[in-house]
Amino acid sequence: MIMPNETHDSIRAVQWQGDHLRLLDQRRLPGEECWIDCRDAAQVTQAIRDLAVRGAPAIGIAAAWGVAMAAQQHVPLEPVLASLRATRPTAVNLMWALDRMKKRIAAGADATALVREAQAIQDEDLAANRHMGQFGASLITPGSGVLTHCNTGSLATAGYGTALGVIRAGVAAGRIARVYAGETRPWQQGARLTMWELVRDGISAQLIADSAAAHLMKSGAVQWVIVGADRIAANGDTANKIGTYQLAIAAKYHGVKFMVVAPSSTVDMATGTGEEIEIELRDPAELLCTAGRRTVIEGAQAWNPVFDVAPAELIDAIVTERGVIERPNSIAMQAMFGW
Amino acid sequence: MIMPNETHDSIRAVQWQGDHLRLLDQRRLPGEECWIDCRDAAQVTQAIRDLAVRGAPAIGIAAAWGVAMAAQQHVPLEPVLASLRATRPTAVNLMWALDRMKKRIAAGADATALVREAQAIQDEDLAANRHMGQFGASLITPGSGVLTHCNTGSLATAGYGTALGVIRAGVAAGRIARVYAGETRPWQQGARLTMWELVRDGISAQLIADSAAAHLMKSGAVQWVIVGADRIAANGDTANKIGTYQLAIAAKYHGVKFMVVAPSSTVDMATGTGEEIEIELRDPAELLCTAGRRTVIEGAQAWNPVFDVAPAELIDAIVTERGVIERPNSIAMQAMFGW
Repeated sequence: MIMPNETHDSIRAVQWQGDHLRLLDQRRLPGEECWIDCRDAAQVTQAIRDLAVRGAPAIGIAAAWGVAMAAQQHVPLEPVLASLRATRPTAVNLMWALDRMKKRIAAGADATALVREAQAIQDEDLAANRHMGQFGASLITPGSGVLTHCNTGSLATAGYGTALGVIRAGVAAGRIARVYAGETRPWQQGARLTMWELVRDGISAQLIADSAAAHLMKSGAVQWVIVGADRIAANGDTANKIGTYQLAIAAKYHGVKFMVVAPSSTVDMATGTGEEIEIELRDPAELLCTAGRRTVIEGAQAWNPVFDVAPAELIDAIVTERGVIERPNSIAMQAMFGW
Repeated sequence: MIMPNETHDSIRAVQWQGDHLRLLDQRRLPGEECWIDCRDAAQVTQAIRDLAVRGAPAIGIAAAWGVAMAAQQHVPLEPVLASLRATRPTAVNLMWALDRMKKRIAAGADATALVREAQAIQDEDLAANRHMGQFGASLITPGSGVLTHCNTGSLATAGYGTALGVIRAGVAAGRIARVYAGETRPWQQGARLTMWELVRDGISAQLIADSAAAHLMKSGAVQWVIVGADRIAANGDTANKIGTYQLAIAAKYHGVKFMVVAPSSTVDMATGTGEEIEIELRDPAELLCTAGRRTVIEGAQAWNPVFDVAPAELIDAIVTERGVIERPNSIAMQAMFGW
């Protein structure tokens, strides 16, 4: 049984400083804990685009702060909203947060009110994560092993985490006996960030190569795959970090259950199915180079989609702060998230 | 359509020099083409253990040369056979080559005869690869895309390759229109070695993250997954590089066909099923460090199995130099490989 020191999850990677935004540079973890002070919205935009801040909820929160800061600085807000929106196409929390800020702007909110709105987005995310942790953990039979992918912890959110929040809650409740994390190529969010959070929390975990997941499942060591989401369509199809789809297929093959954990801001009822979700393609250099050094022969090409879609039929549970949808489909999604 | 310059496959990574063995150090590719001269069997043993030479057939060939060299040097052969055999547990070609040398030793062969036997093992492997290339390519519908895993090319064999030999033959015959290679964590044999061979051959290919394979399959871009093998059991279950099993599951889910290509020396009729195959666990540091630098927080643990087993029911064709077994099972395996 895993004995956590105490599930403290004390990391806050997105910190409003009253007049600027401080971000923990996630590209430099775990080697260095380096903070970036963004003093205008353009710096926030760049931090999102360059992955200094990443994770669907954290991106939305950072973007909201970017808008609030622009308002404080009397910068025209329309171009700020547009450039923040264009940074990353897949995670819908970004669009959701910007739409929420936009609505307040349209209603005549001043800078103080926009700061309050950004703070509310951040606070609500943290509260949602605590709720999801309880909901998700309650689904797990005591003694289970879990596998997660990418980083969905404090670093990816306002704090505590989505999928990693469920793992924190499940370990604290004594339900989770074994934790595995896939390294998550090419950015290694699992290796660099999730392992960093888990070790800091005193939660014993094993890192695996992404390719070892099916072999691990066959061994019987894991009963649940638990992942976050970047966008959940109206039928339950879920876009998440590349590799999620492959894990969902392998889980189904082994009778391992598959849980998606995300705040309701990740649900996009305007997107009918996963087919409609734009999948971000990033620079092939992310696969061709390691730590700035070319590791693949010159002249080689690479295909680097950074998200994929797990179809609803491979998902056993979608957990949001509103509750749990088991075996998701359009009807259940509409009942919980429809207007 | 891919237009190869010419499929020349001119690399010979294992080269007998009359009195010592020269190995292309595969750990340093593609950055450096560095050769290691092994002047005794202990150096060959270390080169196999440390992955300077890797790939199931190449390991067997190098080991055979190690025995021949020991005979030339009048070194007692039993301990040499034992230490070579203990280097890597999963690939059976190693045991097969050593058993073949042992049989010649038992029959009273002198150093000259043992050199001839090692040369025969190497020559037969190259010839087998050419045959497998033709057999495998004939299964592929013109215009197909293929995905491979790890490195199974000239570097992993006496030359030309097993799975990569089929890809070479299929491209040369105009049957293969698209080639994808998984990077193959943690050693990156796909990224470092397969892409190196393909670029040198003028074969256009795309590198992908191992986790992107299912998303690629869903796009319809690949019709075959083509992999090598480290051991094929009597029922057709196949041990190969970690990730192979996950690819086989994803292929089945998408109706993509799955081909295993290996010389008959990889078939182990004494192993009933994949359950009996010992899976090598390597140092967790292979996942915790990159290029000698720690990339994961201190205190983190990792689980690093480097092979897994694709069960026969997920395999559409096993290709050896003796021919093709479609939908492999014990009866078909016995008919082709039984005594």
